[in-house]
Amino acid sequence: MKIIVLGGDGYLGWPTAMYLSEKGHEVTIVDNFAKRTWEQEIGVPPFNPPPNLSHRVRVWKEVTHGKVIKVQVCDIAENPALLYKIFEGASPDAVVHYAEQPSAPYSMISRGHAVYTQRNNVIGTLNLIYAILHHNRDIHIVKLGTMGEYGTPNIDIEEGWLELEHRGRKDRVLFPKRPGSLYHLSKVHDSHNLEFACRTWGLHVTDLNQGIVYGMDTNETVQHPDLRTSFHYDEVFGTVLNRFCAQVIAEKPLTVYGSGNQTRGFLNIRDTLKCVELALLHPANSGEFRVFNQFTEQFSVNQLAGLVSCAARSLGKTVITNHIPDPRVEAQQHYYKAIHTELESLGFVSTFLTQKILRAMLTNLSADPASIDAKSLENTSVIWNVS
Amino acid sequence: MKIIVLGGDGYLGWPTAMYLSEKGHEVTIVDNFAKRTWEQEIGVPPFNPPPNLSHRVRVWKEVTHGKVIKVQVCDIAENPALLYKIFEGASPDAVVHYAEQPSAPYSMISRGHAVYTQRNNVIGTLNLIYAILHHNRDIHIVKLGTMGEYGTPNIDIEEGWLELEHRGRKDRVLFPKRPGSLYHLSKVHDSHNLEFACRTWGLHVTDLNQGIVYGMDTNETVQHPDLRTSFHYDEVFGTVLNRFCAQVIAEKPLTVYGSGNQTRGFLNIRDTLKCVELALLHPANSGEFRVFNQFTEQFSVNQLAGLVSCAARSLGKTVITNHIPDPRVEAQQHYYKAIHTELESLGFVSTFLTQKILRAMLTNLSADPASIDAKSLENTSVIWNVS
Repeated sequence: MKIIVLGGDGYLGWPTAMYLSEKGHEVTIVDNFAKRTWEQEIGVPPFNPPPNLSHRVRVWKEVTHGKVIKVQVCDIAENPALLYKIFEGASPDAVVHYAEQPSAPYSMISRGHAVYTQRNNVIGTLNLIYAILHHNRDIHIVKLGTMGEYGTPNIDIEEGWLELEHRGRKDRVLFPKRPGSLYHLSKVHDSHNLEFACRTWGLHVTDLNQGIVYGMDTNETVQHPDLRTSFHYDEVFGTVLNRFCAQVIAEKPLTVYGSGNQTRGFLNIRDTLKCVELALLHPANSGEFRVFNQFTEQFSVNQLAGLVSCAARSLGKTVITNHIPDPRVEAQQHYYKAIHTELESLGFVSTFLTQKILRAMLTNLSADPASIDAKSLENTSVIWNVS
Repeated sequence: MKIIVLGGDGYLGWPTAMYLSEKGHEVTIVDNFAKRTWEQEIGVPPFNPPPNLSHRVRVWKEVTHGKVIKVQVCDIAENPALLYKIFEGASPDAVVHYAEQPSAPYSMISRGHAVYTQRNNVIGTLNLIYAILHHNRDIHIVKLGTMGEYGTPNIDIEEGWLELEHRGRKDRVLFPKRPGSLYHLSKVHDSHNLEFACRTWGLHVTDLNQGIVYGMDTNETVQHPDLRTSFHYDEVFGTVLNRFCAQVIAEKPLTVYGSGNQTRGFLNIRDTLKCVELALLHPANSGEFRVFNQFTEQFSVNQLAGLVSCAARSLGKTVITNHIPDPRVEAQQHYYKAIHTELESLGFVSTFLTQKILRAMLTNLSADPASIDAKSLENTSVIWNVS
């Protein structure tokens, strides 16, 4: 299969590109390296920053004895003409779309950050839709959405669609969304635009409403030190479990926001790759806007802090947990039950969060503790409701 | 009350500004005259084009013996700094927000038009939210949404929110949306962003999900010929009933898209003004995202064609109706029942579509038939699904 990976320089994009290349697919990465600029702005580099993309692609070719990942540099939100040209050249069967600003806190820093995030994400996805209309409507889009689009409704979260009955009549509708940040809203907007594109132009879209990803190693990243992916642990780009692990190594308290009873879906970075592959191998039909809830287990933040503490103690480390005022506006106590059976029905076998996995993450990080900016792990600076 | 009318140069914005000024409110219009450029691009001017805004504001002052409508020129999507300054100067109690690209066909012309529409509308509304956060969170936003956000679901359309029960649990959620164009989607995105702003920052928002507006006269426009509003009848900016009336006067067939069984909610331009005023006088509470379905009657397109034909014949005109291939992708046959009781409960008394009203519209238009571009009324050029 010929596959374009949009955002292939990122935390998930790079491991996905290698994984698909390893499986024999012809992979072209498109990226504009915007994340590198955001990192500079936040001032906290990823753990042990990986080499630049062109170097990693060369190492990948050496390690695999000749597997080629092509690279195209393009801002898909700002340069649709170049995007069209890339589609013309690559003639892909499918596109995996990670090319979005992925951080809720980043979107909440200021008006400018909110506008940037929604413009970048929504317009980038619109340009992708038009590139496919222009080039070939059979190209399957595998879009990375987020479980955060749903928020925390008081009913079970179905996979994207909801069969409902109201005043004696029935319909099947997009599951109602109530997300918790302007970033998450950008993903909701994408979902609505993509559903329209399927309904109006017969596009094939799989929207992967992904839980919160943790971990750093995949079968490909471990093949050579230079193939590692960018692992963020800061409050803006680091996801909660990754941040907790970094806090352990930096000998800082685990900072739990508010009550810690906030519950979300989580998955291992290895599972992201398996799920993306399953979606690619079983494409959505023409006109189908298909949504998968892509996560493995639900945890509250308190449960995660407990699991990380346990793993840390087993490695001889002392850990304390601090509850700090929640910088976000979110429910501190809520119902949470999200259905996830679609990927399982395609053969997805989950990786569960074990003490062994947590110990491995901690061990990886402890190999280079100086690479962690400890000071950045003490406080939060992005506050949702600035008065 | 001090009120900012965003988009006060437009078809509805200008009559709204005069109506509120007449009622004694202190009105500031903000507009960037973008609509004038879009008119040039489409190549069909409005019927008997109204004078420019500064002239009309002077005439309004004369006619009313001293009522002042202030004008500020600002692109709210592109110049947030100026928008902040305008809020500082005007210190409004409320904002009526019409400043959006309002046409479904315009958004469907090309990729560029789709991107422009979503960027202009979504970013403009985001900047408005931040201007209010910056200046004063008590400012009530009265936002013009559209009934088109809902699409044509197979269940009754409630007013913005839906109480639902699912697997034995209950929640109140935003009514699920499935709109029919990238313009309508921009309004859906606005609604989601505004609901977030209410929930997160305690803003007060009334979202008026308005039906399709018809008519040209209000109590204020008729006070002087130069106070008329811009009346569009073309396929891009003209709403269906206004277009049918222009077709009668241009001696062209009424062009019904597809089956003509598409059913929508409609209201008279005078009712728009009354509803906006009711929303202003009864503001939403802090943190409340309040939605009103703002329309008077439901009609199918065939019914409208019949009503217009009847009025035309009573004026001695011959009319034929042509069914042309539907340029839009939309259901040709569907259930449609939309609830609208909230505005009525605040005292809204509807103006119904009568033969007298239709004859008055036709008579207005027949006063200057040469001002109608007959050629533009023969065909449609914007096709949703270009293969």
